[in-house]
Amino acid sequence: MKTKGILTVVSGFAGTGKGTLMKRLVQDYDCYALSVSMTTRQPRPGEVNGTDYFFVSREEFEKTIAEDGLIEHACYVDNYYGTPRKYIEDKLAEGKDVILEIEIQGALKVKERFPETLLIFVMPPNAEVLKKRLTGRGTETLPVIAKRMCRAAEEACGIERYDYIAVNDNLDECVEMLHRIISTAHMRTICNLEFIDQVRKDLTETWKGEN
Amino acid sequence: MKTKGILTVVSGFAGTGKGTLMKRLVQDYDCYALSVSMTTRQPRPGEVNGTDYFFVSREEFEKTIAEDGLIEHACYVDNYYGTPRKYIEDKLAEGKDVILEIEIQGALKVKERFPETLLIFVMPPNAEVLKKRLTGRGTETLPVIAKRMCRAAEEACGIERYDYIAVNDNLDECVEMLHRIISTAHMRTICNLEFIDQVRKDLTETWKGEN
Repeated sequence: MKTKGILTVVSGFAGTGKGTLMKRLVQDYDCYALSVSMTTRQPRPGEVNGTDYFFVSREEFEKTIAEDGLIEHACYVDNYYGTPRKYIEDKLAEGKDVILEIEIQGALKVKERFPETLLIFVMPPNAEVLKKRLTGRGTETLPVIAKRMCRAAEEACGIERYDYIAVNDNLDECVEMLHRIISTAHMRTICNLEFIDQVRKDLTETWKGEN
Repeated sequence: MKTKGILTVVSGFAGTGKGTLMKRLVQDYDCYALSVSMTTRQPRPGEVNGTDYFFVSREEFEKTIAEDGLIEHACYVDNYYGTPRKYIEDKLAEGKDVILEIEIQGALKVKERFPETLLIFVMPPNAEVLKKRLTGRGTETLPVIAKRMCRAAEEACGIERYDYIAVNDNLDECVEMLHRIISTAHMRTICNLEFIDQVRKDLTETWKGEN
C-alpha cells in the first residue's frame, strides 16, 4: 500500500545537528528528498550554492516572493529565508518524503497551509551540550551566538505546536528515530482516506443480501 | 528519557485479528500491558474469565458503572462492554503502555476524555479477506456475521477520527508496525512538555550575560 509523499519540517536550535541529521537520512534511505532553501544570508565556509542553500540577493528573493514561488518565507537575524515551491511539489508527486529544515516561524506557516505536514523539533539532550557544540564550531563570536540563542529560547514557545521532538544525543539513534517517525506517519488515517473508504464500500457490498 | 505510559486503543472490524495482534505485542515486547474489558456477553468456546474478558451479569455491570469504575462503556449487539479504570491507571503509572481493544464508540469516548490516547484502527487488506476469515471461524451463523458486518460498516464513519490505521495482511509485519506506531508516539511533543520546558529554561539561563 503506497501512499503519496509526506512533507516533513525539521526545526531545532542552532547546534543540535539538524543539517547532519538531514544529510544522513537522505544517504541512508532512498525515500527522502531534501528541500533546498533560498536565503539572502552570506554562505558560511564550505557551504555550496544549490546544495546547502540557494544564495540569492535581496532583489532576487523579493522577485520570487512576488511570483508566489515560495511556500513560506521569513526574515531571521536580518536575512530572508524561504522554501521554493516547485521542487517540493514535484518530489511529493514522485512519492518521495520531502524534508525541509526551517525555523519555527516558517514551520508553523507551512503547517497552517498544509495541515498534513509533519513537524519535528530536534532537541539537544540538555542546554549544556548545546553550548559546547556552538562555541566549539568557531564560526561565530560568542556575543553573536548568545544573541541567537536567547532569541531562539524566546521564540521556542512554538515547540508545543510541533508534532514530535527528536533528541539528538547519539547521531545514529536520532537518524533512526526520525526515520521511524516519518515512516509510521504514512499510516496516519489522514494519509489513507481513499483506502479506508474503499474497504468500507466493499464491505457493505460483500455482505449485502446475506442477512 | 523515559516518558510515562501511553494509552492506546485498538479497534477494527471483527475478523481482522485484533485479539491475536494484541497477544503478540504483549508476548514480544515487555513494555505493554493489555487491558481486560468487562462484558455481559456470553463467553465463546475457549475464552477465559479474567484473561479474555471479565464476564459479569447485567446487574454487576450496572453496579460498576454507578461506582465510576469504568473509563468507558457501551452497548453493542445487546450486550454491555466496558473498560475497568483502576488497572489502566496503575499500569500507566508503572510506565507501561496500556492497550485496550474496544469498538469505535468506546474508543472515541476515551479519546474525548483523555486526548493523549492513541487510536489505531486495524484494517483488513481488503473486504474479501475479511469475509473468508469470518466465515472460516465457524463460531457464528452467516446471518449473525452479516448483521454485525453491515452494522460495523455503517458505524465505521468514525475511522477518520482514529490517529492511525494498521493493515493486517501479514501478522508479523502488523505486530511490528503497531509497535513502531506506539513507540514513536512517546516522542510526541504532548508527551514531552516537561522536558521541553526544562531545556528552554536552561538555555536562557546558560546564555544570560553572554550578550
